[in-house]
Amino acid sequence: MKENLHVFKIGGAVLEEEAELENTLAFFSNLPGQKVLVHGGGRRASRLSQALGIEPRMHEGRRITDAVTLEAVVMAYAGWENKRIVSLLQALGCNALGLSGADGNTILAAKRPPGEVDYGYAGDIRKVNAPAIAALLQAGFTPVFCAITHDGQGQLLNTNADTIAAELAAALAPHYQLSLYYCFEMPGVMLDVAQPDSLIAYLDPEAYARHRQSSQISGGMIPKLDNGFRALQARVESVQIGSRRSLANGEATQLLLTSEFPEEG
Amino acid sequence: MKENLHVFKIGGAVLEEEAELENTLAFFSNLPGQKVLVHGGGRRASRLSQALGIEPRMHEGRRITDAVTLEAVVMAYAGWENKRIVSLLQALGCNALGLSGADGNTILAAKRPPGEVDYGYAGDIRKVNAPAIAALLQAGFTPVFCAITHDGQGQLLNTNADTIAAELAAALAPHYQLSLYYCFEMPGVMLDVAQPDSLIAYLDPEAYARHRQSSQISGGMIPKLDNGFRALQARVESVQIGSRRSLANGEATQLLLTSEFPEEG
Repeated sequence: MKENLHVFKIGGAVLEEEAELENTLAFFSNLPGQKVLVHGGGRRASRLSQALGIEPRMHEGRRITDAVTLEAVVMAYAGWENKRIVSLLQALGCNALGLSGADGNTILAAKRPPGEVDYGYAGDIRKVNAPAIAALLQAGFTPVFCAITHDGQGQLLNTNADTIAAELAAALAPHYQLSLYYCFEMPGVMLDVAQPDSLIAYLDPEAYARHRQSSQISGGMIPKLDNGFRALQARVESVQIGSRRSLANGEATQLLLTSEFPEEG
Repeated sequence: MKENLHVFKIGGAVLEEEAELENTLAFFSNLPGQKVLVHGGGRRASRLSQALGIEPRMHEGRRITDAVTLEAVVMAYAGWENKRIVSLLQALGCNALGLSGADGNTILAAKRPPGEVDYGYAGDIRKVNAPAIAALLQAGFTPVFCAITHDGQGQLLNTNADTIAAELAAALAPHYQLSLYYCFEMPGVMLDVAQPDSLIAYLDPEAYARHRQSSQISGGMIPKLDNGFRALQARVESVQIGSRRSLANGEATQLLLTSEFPEEG
């Protein structure tokens, strides 16, 4: 039987409130079996950019990363966010080891070619180095990935953290019994943020397409869901989206590839 | 026989000039056997501090690290400097993996107690985790350490990179045939910076004490030399101080514990 591996992505407001971050890291460190953390940090990167006099530029939720902005996101993600998360996990007894995709050549990416929009130093993932990550896990480390990759030619690249989590999960799925989690401030996928009872328990691609067409699902949820379904297709066992509380209570949104909902146990 | 391990510290102007950095990393990556890189980055940290509106404060060459300065040094050292060095080494075919002392709990430190001067979040090393570093080396990674440690309780700390290099070398010396290098812009220890022929080929503690008393050796050279002699006492095989060129040509300053100079070969 394959060993369990949890790929757990945290982002959004979770990184902004010290107490919530610490509680979420405690929840993560108590997950049984092997685990990998992935974190964003876009809000800090934007604040750092502004402090350095560079106004953040976004296009459809994605950051336009010029050379100076790249320095700011590398400093924010791989510097402060990654190291404070690692040090907090170490204090919880979890043997965290922080990584960008350049470290150990764990995630190779290619600079996105300029199209209608030139995203600058934005990287699209080409290859996840599953043997290197498995070697770190086997040596007793818990990898903590920030949203920075490299092109193998000495260029660092800014890469979406939701995508990194899904690609890590997909690449490791042949070797582990894999669960992927997107943990943020919401209890899950909601059809109306103002209505708690609009939380979706199970979501399949057909229903997703319907809700997306009617614009009941939009914005930052779309990359999470696209990535989540892609991970399921790559044989990731389970994909859940929710808050620390809803994930702990089994009330988060579970993605499914078919509309056959699992029976209540 | 023990395997060779090179602990190579780079700092000063080497980090400031792109071409010199790349040449130095190429030299490092061609060293035969296992290796560990340690880097500073104080000049970038000072520029980042200033850009963020915090005037750097130093006391006898050591940075006073308040909470905001800590964020700046973590971003500069563990973020930009560490990741660009790792990505450049990867491009050279060296399987670099960047670390702070928090990562894998590799370097545990204690916050320096306030004395005459309160250095703030400055860390004095308590324990180097030699087994964790050996596990990374055995898994095929080349560790690249920045000058950040942690206290094991969730607090990151700013720690002198020269000291980190010496403590790593001393802790790994029982397991490897160990060489320690301090690589910077000068060809070695000089009695008069304006006189190239004042370069010292061999330096023992007695001569060091004499030159220090006469103030012919001073400033930033002192921590390197104190750390270097301490490493020799801890059974590090060889300690050299110099530039990339002088190290390559065997013309760098070599530290010795006794005044019996080695015979010319």
